[in-house]
Amino acid sequence: MPRSPLGLRVPEGMHDILPMELALQDQAEETVLKLFKTWAYQKVLTPTLEYGACIQPVEEEGNSFFKLFDRQGHVLVLRPELTTSIARLVSTRMRGAPMPIRLCYAADVFRYSKSHRQEFRQVGVELIGSDSPAADAEVVALAIEALQKLKQKGFQINLGHMGIFKGLMAELEIPSEFKASYEEKLGRKDFVGIERLVRDSGLAPQVKEILFKFPHLHGTEDMLAEVLQWSQQAYLREAVEELHSIFSYLKAFGVQENVNLDLGILRGFSYYTGAVFEGYVPGIGFPVVEGGRYDTLYSEFGEDIPATGFAINLGALIEQIPCPIFQSSEVLVYGGDIVQVIARTQKLRQAGKTVEMCLENLTREEALKLAKKKGIPEVIGI
Amino acid sequence: MPRSPLGLRVPEGMHDILPMELALQDQAEETVLKLFKTWAYQKVLTPTLEYGACIQPVEEEGNSFFKLFDRQGHVLVLRPELTTSIARLVSTRMRGAPMPIRLCYAADVFRYSKSHRQEFRQVGVELIGSDSPAADAEVVALAIEALQKLKQKGFQINLGHMGIFKGLMAELEIPSEFKASYEEKLGRKDFVGIERLVRDSGLAPQVKEILFKFPHLHGTEDMLAEVLQWSQQAYLREAVEELHSIFSYLKAFGVQENVNLDLGILRGFSYYTGAVFEGYVPGIGFPVVEGGRYDTLYSEFGEDIPATGFAINLGALIEQIPCPIFQSSEVLVYGGDIVQVIARTQKLRQAGKTVEMCLENLTREEALKLAKKKGIPEVIGI
Repeated sequence: MPRSPLGLRVPEGMHDILPMELALQDQAEETVLKLFKTWAYQKVLTPTLEYGACIQPVEEEGNSFFKLFDRQGHVLVLRPELTTSIARLVSTRMRGAPMPIRLCYAADVFRYSKSHRQEFRQVGVELIGSDSPAADAEVVALAIEALQKLKQKGFQINLGHMGIFKGLMAELEIPSEFKASYEEKLGRKDFVGIERLVRDSGLAPQVKEILFKFPHLHGTEDMLAEVLQWSQQAYLREAVEELHSIFSYLKAFGVQENVNLDLGILRGFSYYTGAVFEGYVPGIGFPVVEGGRYDTLYSEFGEDIPATGFAINLGALIEQIPCPIFQSSEVLVYGGDIVQVIARTQKLRQAGKTVEMCLENLTREEALKLAKKKGIPEVIGI
Repeated sequence: MPRSPLGLRVPEGMHDILPMELALQDQAEETVLKLFKTWAYQKVLTPTLEYGACIQPVEEEGNSFFKLFDRQGHVLVLRPELTTSIARLVSTRMRGAPMPIRLCYAADVFRYSKSHRQEFRQVGVELIGSDSPAADAEVVALAIEALQKLKQKGFQINLGHMGIFKGLMAELEIPSEFKASYEEKLGRKDFVGIERLVRDSGLAPQVKEILFKFPHLHGTEDMLAEVLQWSQQAYLREAVEELHSIFSYLKAFGVQENVNLDLGILRGFSYYTGAVFEGYVPGIGFPVVEGGRYDTLYSEFGEDIPATGFAINLGALIEQIPCPIFQSSEVLVYGGDIVQVIARTQKLRQAGKTVEMCLENLTREEALKLAKKKGIPEVIGI
């Protein structure tokens, strides 16, 4: 049955990956997974489909999920990320394993989007069972080493803490409606919108001053001292101290050069509770690394366990890497007697060569022409 | 939000893959892909989702697809196999590439099923642009080498030809209603049902005799002579000659020991047109290799190109392989000064060791206990 024009296309926002690009992606994935392994992370894989009841227990409108129904009428979701699925896995089949548990993955995730790829490759880790700042530092340092192994240059990790924003809002007694609007603009880094929002608010001048300054607070440890001048509120103080410890451990890992403290980061997924971070590389306008601490997610699966982790958008990084010259087969074998062609081909393969065998009886001229078209350097006639 | 019991489960027929099993699957996949590469096959990847208009241009009831709607109202299908997607890819983005094209893949496929996994890993190849029996022989031989590399023992490839059944039905002037029923039973290898169907038919005794015999015709080349005694019909004769050539090339590949000619194979996917084959391994009641020639599929995508290929159900094979002892980290580093612990850990990792770092300040006793639980052989205290 002939295909309609639609039947000849890939779905919107999806892509075929051709040999050159796929070889790059596979190689990058292998490099990162090898690194994760050296850091004691074990690879797991969850299904592409999860019950909606796992990914999103309360259905929301306007989300970015691909959904379908199974034959019993349950909602299924194509995984939009792996953290929730791994929380389900650890809370069920891996329950009782000695903590901390270090897991990693490489998998495609699916999100409706008008501007980005809707299916893309993620590699990431989850460090489960420790609330120590050393755990936060470990995953940040690992993300940085991964980007280094991927030969990324000039990248930057912005590191913040959910507790600082939360503590500050409590301390300043910010009304919840204003807070929601401020938070939303902060998440989108809409600095113009924030200016206007704060200016037009009826808040006290000293509060306004802090709210103007907050989105622009970034740098190294020194900046944290300024925050403590604003407030000694316990929740905020604790968050600042945690960031301090994490930063000092990052120095021990030797990766502080790539880290920028940024108190204005608020990660999109609602499960983050503590230190959060985003990684940017030159030329990509959205974070290619997203991570942070999520200490309440496991309790939703019946286990009260702290955890942290990150995911790298490998697909986006690959699109930035120039494709090398394509490596074709090494030898083309041709001849009139297919049985002889097979025998010779098999012998060369056993010697480790990548060999293409001619299936038709070509003349020498035809074989040379084909080899030239395919970029095969050696031609053997039987 | 606490998860309901459903939210703690994987969807029916889907599975988490734990570290040991995943390591096995990854290793098996790597082995097979390396082999495919030596045979000049280049790896590609198509999206997990395809338009229904690509996979199934005429919608049928009762199929085994996972379907959903995109936001424009188009039907999307989770790929049930890769052959059709690769036909779309080759007919569009790879159009004009020098033939034959050899492509391979490793990907999860999705099929509703009450008895099998609904998401499972497939590795496979497509050899596009040759109608030579040498092409059929190449893919059969490659499937056999792949099973050998996967250390499978006692497996068998059953090789048949769609043209023999088709030719025979035409020659014997079998009514189409009887033919459909016979074909369906043959596909399911329902020999009892076939006995009854043929016995109760009003067909001539000599026709009945052939129809009784046909499902049991298997063996080596000699068996083909018997078929030619039944009929000299051109279509059937050509099919028999093709099988002859393929079998002789399989001898040249040195794999004929694993091949059993079986005229009763009819492959489930409707696109097969010529030589078809199935691979069975001991202990698995369904074929783990499925392949064959499909010379009309490409014309549905606007390109008239012959092709052949196969897919291996890697997931099913992995389930049969015993899991080796699990390889944990090599060293556990602990100590009171996290900065020192980090420094030592990083040094060991740079030397190529897989190292787990203690995130809390453990005593020696606690560290030894943890190492024992996790099976880590070496413990270093700072």
